[in-house]
Amino acid sequence: MTQAPQGAAQYAAVSAAPTVVESAMRRALALAAQGPAHGPNPRVGCVLLDPDGRTVAEGFHRGAGTPHAEAAALASARSRGIDPRGTTAVVTLEPCAHHGRTGPCADALIDAGVAAVHVAVGDPNPVATGGAAKLRAAGIEVTTGTLADEGEELLRHWLHAVRTRRPYVTLKLATSLDGRVAAADGTSRWITGPQARAHAHTVRAQVDAIAVGTGTALADDPSLTARTIDGGLFEHQPLRVVLGRRPVPDAARLRGPGGALLHLPEHDLAAVLDRLAEREVRHLLVEGGPTLATALLAADAVDELHAYVAPVLLGAGPTVVGDLGITTIGAAARFTTHDVTRLGDDVLMVARRAQPTTNQPRQDGRPVRPTQEEI
Amino acid sequence: MTQAPQGAAQYAAVSAAPTVVESAMRRALALAAQGPAHGPNPRVGCVLLDPDGRTVAEGFHRGAGTPHAEAAALASARSRGIDPRGTTAVVTLEPCAHHGRTGPCADALIDAGVAAVHVAVGDPNPVATGGAAKLRAAGIEVTTGTLADEGEELLRHWLHAVRTRRPYVTLKLATSLDGRVAAADGTSRWITGPQARAHAHTVRAQVDAIAVGTGTALADDPSLTARTIDGGLFEHQPLRVVLGRRPVPDAARLRGPGGALLHLPEHDLAAVLDRLAEREVRHLLVEGGPTLATALLAADAVDELHAYVAPVLLGAGPTVVGDLGITTIGAAARFTTHDVTRLGDDVLMVARRAQPTTNQPRQDGRPVRPTQEEI
Repeated sequence: MTQAPQGAAQYAAVSAAPTVVESAMRRALALAAQGPAHGPNPRVGCVLLDPDGRTVAEGFHRGAGTPHAEAAALASARSRGIDPRGTTAVVTLEPCAHHGRTGPCADALIDAGVAAVHVAVGDPNPVATGGAAKLRAAGIEVTTGTLADEGEELLRHWLHAVRTRRPYVTLKLATSLDGRVAAADGTSRWITGPQARAHAHTVRAQVDAIAVGTGTALADDPSLTARTIDGGLFEHQPLRVVLGRRPVPDAARLRGPGGALLHLPEHDLAAVLDRLAEREVRHLLVEGGPTLATALLAADAVDELHAYVAPVLLGAGPTVVGDLGITTIGAAARFTTHDVTRLGDDVLMVARRAQPTTNQPRQDGRPVRPTQEEI
Repeated sequence: MTQAPQGAAQYAAVSAAPTVVESAMRRALALAAQGPAHGPNPRVGCVLLDPDGRTVAEGFHRGAGTPHAEAAALASARSRGIDPRGTTAVVTLEPCAHHGRTGPCADALIDAGVAAVHVAVGDPNPVATGGAAKLRAAGIEVTTGTLADEGEELLRHWLHAVRTRRPYVTLKLATSLDGRVAAADGTSRWITGPQARAHAHTVRAQVDAIAVGTGTALADDPSLTARTIDGGLFEHQPLRVVLGRRPVPDAARLRGPGGALLHLPEHDLAAVLDRLAEREVRHLLVEGGPTLATALLAADAVDELHAYVAPVLLGAGPTVVGDLGITTIGAAARFTTHDVTRLGDDVLMVARRAQPTTNQPRQDGRPVRPTQEEI
């Protein structure tokens, strides 16, 4: 850490070396990733650089109810007697311009006298956006798009939810090589191995909600909790959502320890996603069964597949999806592979919709809900 | 290269440093891998080390009709005026002890005056084996098992074929994530992408034979050639095998340019494998369709799966395998994953039978055929 600047006039923004700013942005992204993946707010990281490009302070957002990344970085500097005046703020998401429980981050940066701001991703939230314009109006140099792709990837679920006003839908499939989720007699424990199952639990601990249909809820009596390898519960437990009209029994594991239970007696998927968006669910994990998976795929409502495939052949038994109305190969539901991970004997394919969703919020006349990126 | 030794008496085997021998064995394995993966003979590499552990000469077997690796290495030394006397031979497979078109390699090493021999894998071929004993009887120090696992892996198909007297059977599957090989209307080109298809052709160029059933032969009119990306033919073309009683039409692509066509009007898989073993097929690639795949799996005759899985869902259409007689999850046909490779959007899982086959030749009273590892 450097000595605190003694006056703004003598300092300029980090002028040269985009590599210095990029390097700081990488650090800011890494800081952001330390925040929780779940929750209504975006993960944001911030690094303050002195005019020589040295890091003065860092901060990241730890989730709703805690300071924003910019506020955390400014507070970190001041707590060590460092005046942030004249520093360059490198932030993964455009500083907000709206009044929440605290004032806007853009105002905080202006008041602190920062000389320049570099941003990875613009804020798509209509309520919070405008930070860059506000900063520029105050005479601060603002550069956007630094490591934009990495920033988009980090905020993928949140950006999707804010832009479309619906949760990002990840569909989990766990199948044999011949696409079956159970043997002919209905037994299914286990097709995949312990490493795949442990991975699936870490995903549960990162999403806002898990959904199953009443068929799965009644047949399997799942708990839908996020569990560690030793069977304990992760600190974060996702909202448990059951879709369908049949009641969830009083003795169901879904009513036991874990996230809150939300029973939506709906079959209208659009209505379901709207209801979940109203509850600020940004990332919904759908775990089945085939009926729900088929409905989501047929409605083109799946943003990402998590396909755990085991080197197992069954030859009979229920298949992972039912009739999708696809009759010819050209109409197949195709996804684009994002990542492939071997998990013991199994493989996890993470694949995303081939056609990206629109970057525009829906134009149906309803107000866009604000995010809770405020303390 | 060092100067040629001038007399054997003054030299001893490479005495110390197992790392030197291991390093030479790694090189010998790499040399062996330069030989053809197909053909009746094993791939063998040989490195000659002087008493200081320096490489004097190298050789590998280039396929039936060419010198053995040991002979190639000895000839390489002599062609440069180097006397191999007193060297240590590091060979991936036990030198043969039988008379083929040339004398046994064991005799060649004895005659050359090598001081020691290190071997990765013992020769399981009852006709050729005995080389180590012969060498020891001549006073040569023989060490076996150096990098044995790597040697077994390199010779996997050949060792299986010699030990069991049946071809190593690799079953290729190319499926959607829901285990389908075609859409409801029968269209299947293409489920997997160009990288997966190109990979499958490189596998064809490494096997001795490809088999399909008459159903696939008649429905798809495949050529079953090994083709390069630009559509040309690889130098090696596998034997094309069609199983079943229906005739192969005169105009079938299977009768066009490519490997020889063998029509076996059989449904008895054991008889088919015996017939292919008689033709010295060491590695058989089965490419379908579902009827043949199902029969092989039901007979537990699949040694390795090559499953190309595409991030595609079809929801209807024929599945990759039919009824295997499996009714409950505990009886599933499970394989052990050996390797996972991403190929564009697709993934290739290479998985092997969970229960290894016996290492013993079958004890049914018939003579074990000799290999053609002779020139």
